[in-house]
Amino acid sequence: MSVRLTAIYHVRGDAAGIAARARGIAVEQSVEMPVEAIDDAGVLADIVGDVQGIADLGDGMFEVRIGLAVATTGPEAGQLFNMLFGNTSLQDDVTLHDAELPAEVIAGFGGPNLGIAGLRASACAVGRAMTGTALKPQGLSPAGLAALAGRMAGGGIDFIKDDHGLADQGYSPFAARVAAVAAALDRVRRETGHRTRYLPSLSGDLDAMRAQIRMALSVGVHGFVIAPMIAGLATFDTLVREHPDCAFMTHPALSGIARIAPPLFYGKLFRLLGADAVVYPNHGGRFGYSPDTCRHLAEAARAPWGAVRPSLPVPAGGMTLARIGEMLDFYGPDTIVLIGGNLLAARERLREEAAAFVARVAGHHFA
Amino acid sequence: MSVRLTAIYHVRGDAAGIAARARGIAVEQSVEMPVEAIDDAGVLADIVGDVQGIADLGDGMFEVRIGLAVATTGPEAGQLFNMLFGNTSLQDDVTLHDAELPAEVIAGFGGPNLGIAGLRASACAVGRAMTGTALKPQGLSPAGLAALAGRMAGGGIDFIKDDHGLADQGYSPFAARVAAVAAALDRVRRETGHRTRYLPSLSGDLDAMRAQIRMALSVGVHGFVIAPMIAGLATFDTLVREHPDCAFMTHPALSGIARIAPPLFYGKLFRLLGADAVVYPNHGGRFGYSPDTCRHLAEAARAPWGAVRPSLPVPAGGMTLARIGEMLDFYGPDTIVLIGGNLLAARERLREEAAAFVARVAGHHFA
Repeated sequence: MSVRLTAIYHVRGDAAGIAARARGIAVEQSVEMPVEAIDDAGVLADIVGDVQGIADLGDGMFEVRIGLAVATTGPEAGQLFNMLFGNTSLQDDVTLHDAELPAEVIAGFGGPNLGIAGLRASACAVGRAMTGTALKPQGLSPAGLAALAGRMAGGGIDFIKDDHGLADQGYSPFAARVAAVAAALDRVRRETGHRTRYLPSLSGDLDAMRAQIRMALSVGVHGFVIAPMIAGLATFDTLVREHPDCAFMTHPALSGIARIAPPLFYGKLFRLLGADAVVYPNHGGRFGYSPDTCRHLAEAARAPWGAVRPSLPVPAGGMTLARIGEMLDFYGPDTIVLIGGNLLAARERLREEAAAFVARVAGHHFA
Repeated sequence: MSVRLTAIYHVRGDAAGIAARARGIAVEQSVEMPVEAIDDAGVLADIVGDVQGIADLGDGMFEVRIGLAVATTGPEAGQLFNMLFGNTSLQDDVTLHDAELPAEVIAGFGGPNLGIAGLRASACAVGRAMTGTALKPQGLSPAGLAALAGRMAGGGIDFIKDDHGLADQGYSPFAARVAAVAAALDRVRRETGHRTRYLPSLSGDLDAMRAQIRMALSVGVHGFVIAPMIAGLATFDTLVREHPDCAFMTHPALSGIARIAPPLFYGKLFRLLGADAVVYPNHGGRFGYSPDTCRHLAEAARAPWGAVRPSLPVPAGGMTLARIGEMLDFYGPDTIVLIGGNLLAARERLREEAAAFVARVAGHHFA
C-alpha cells in the first residue's frame, strides 16, 4: 500500500447508503472513473482512494475517512487542496472536516516562517496577548491612512494590518501607501520608542506580489496580509518559501464558499502553507462561527505538530474593547486581538482608544 | 457618484430586518467599518457601497442590489472577487447571485482569447456540437495515458482534456505526459486525418504554469485546463493575457456549491477572465445542479456581452452516451459534450465507443 494521507469528510446520508457513498467519494477524489474499468494493477493498489472507516455521528451525519495516495498530491499546495476537496466541494452532502497528513507531506510544505515565537519577538511582547488593528477605510489617500496609522501606533498597538480591501487602487497605490505608513510608524518609534509592525495587503498575481514585497522590504516592512483563496494556494506557498524572513497573516476572504471546516482550513492547512497568524471571524461578531468552531480553530493553529511552527489565532470581525477580557479568557495569551472598525469609531480619540485597548490587553490577568 | 458595478445578493431574512441587513452588506463589501466614523467626504460619496434596491423573492428570501465603486476593484481579477464576495462569502445568509459590470470593467479583463468560434474552428467542427473526453486515471504513466489518448482520438473525439487530478506527479510528469500524448495524437492525425485537440491540466504557481505552457507550445499543444479557484484568479487572468493564441478551459474544482450562483461564477466571471470553455457538473449526474441552473449557466456563457467572446459550455460529471440526444436538445450545438469515465469503461472497445460517441453527436438533428 502506498503512503496515504487521510481526508475526513462529514457526509449527510443514511445508514443503508453510506458505505456506497463513501466508496463514491474515495473514487471521486482519486481516479474519478469507474474502478472496474481500470486495468493497471499499480493504479488499483496505489492510487485508488480507500475507505478507512465510517462512523455514525447521529442525526443523519456520518464521518467518512478516506485514504488518498500522497503520490497524487506531491508537495504542491494547489494539488493538495485539489485532492482533498476539488470535486467533492461541488457535492453538497459533503464537508471536508479534517485531514491527517503523513510526515513527508508536512515536511514538503514546512509551515510558518516565524510562528508564534517569531511574531511575539518581533512585537517585543512577553507574557501577554498582542494587539492588532486594521487600516481603513478604502478610498483614503496614503497620507490619510498614514495619519490614522500614526495615531494607532501612538497608542502602542503591536500590529497594524491593511484592511483586506486595500489593494493597489488608484487612490492608494501599494507603494505610496506602504512608504507613507512605514514613515509614520518610524516617526512614532523615534518619539515613543514603540515599534508597531505594519502588514500591508498583497494583491494581483505572483509577480505583482513579489514586487510589492520587494518594495515593502526596502522601507523595512517585513510582514504581509494575504488571502490564499483569492491569491491562489500555490502563490501563497511560493511567497512564504521565497521570503523566509517575512511574516504572513492570512485573511479568509472568499473562502466561505468552500465548505471546509474552519479549524482545518485556517488552523491546519493555512498554517501548513505558512500562516504565521490566521485572521478569522470570532464568535459573536458579524459572522456565524460558534464558540466551539473558534476554540477548535485556535487549538489547531497552536497545537504541537512536528517541526511546523504554531500560528497565532487572530479572532476578528466586529470585535470591541468591551469584549477583550472575555476573548482573552477564551483564547489565552498566544493571540492577537484584532479590533478594527470599532477602534476607528473613536475618531479624534483614536490614539487614546488605541492606548486603552493596549492597556486592557497588557493588564489582563489570565486565570 | 462614482462609477459602480452592481452586486446582486440573495439574502435570507425577514421583511423587518432586510433594509438594515442590506446596508450591512453594502458596508461589509466596501469600507468594512462604521460609516459614522468616516470623515472623508470623498469616501462617503464615492467608496461606501449603496443599496440600489431590495426585492422580496418570497419564502424569506430577498434580492439585494448593492452598488460598489469600480475604483475599489480596478481591473484586477482577485480584487474583483474580493469586492464582490470576499467577506460576505463568510456569512451564510448570503449568496452572490449575479453581477452587473460596467463597460470599463469588462474592457479591463477582456474575456476569452478564442471563444466559441475560435474553438470551433480549431476543431474543424461546423454545424454540430463538439465532443470531449477526459484522460485518466491518475497513476498511469505517460505511455499509458498516451495509449488511451490515441484510441480516443482514433474514434474522432474533438477535445481530450487532462483529468483535473493530473498535475505534475512523479508517475506522470507534465512534460513527459504532454510530449507522449501530443505524439500519439500526431500519429492518429497522420493515419486518419483527424486532429484531436489536447488540453493538459496546469498546476503549481504562476511560474510553473508558464513553464508548462511553454513546454506544451513546443510540441504543438495550444489549449489548457485550469481550475481558477485552485490556481488563483489573478494567475488565470495573467496566463490568458500572456498567451492570446491559447485556449483555456476552466474546471470548477474547489469552487464549492451554491454560495456563488453557478451561472454567474462559471458562465459570467470565469468567462470574463478568459474561459474559452467552462466545465461544470451537468444536471442528473454525480453533482446536484438543477436543469434550471445548467440552462442559466449555459445562457450566461454564450450571451452577447459587448466585445467579450462567448464561452463554450462543457456539461460533465457522470455523463453517458445514452444521454447525448437529451443533452444536445437541452444545450444546442454550441456545446462540448464531455464524457469521461463512462467512455473509459468500454476498455478494449474504447476506440469504437469514442467513434460511437462522435457519430451520435455529429448525427444529432437539432429541432
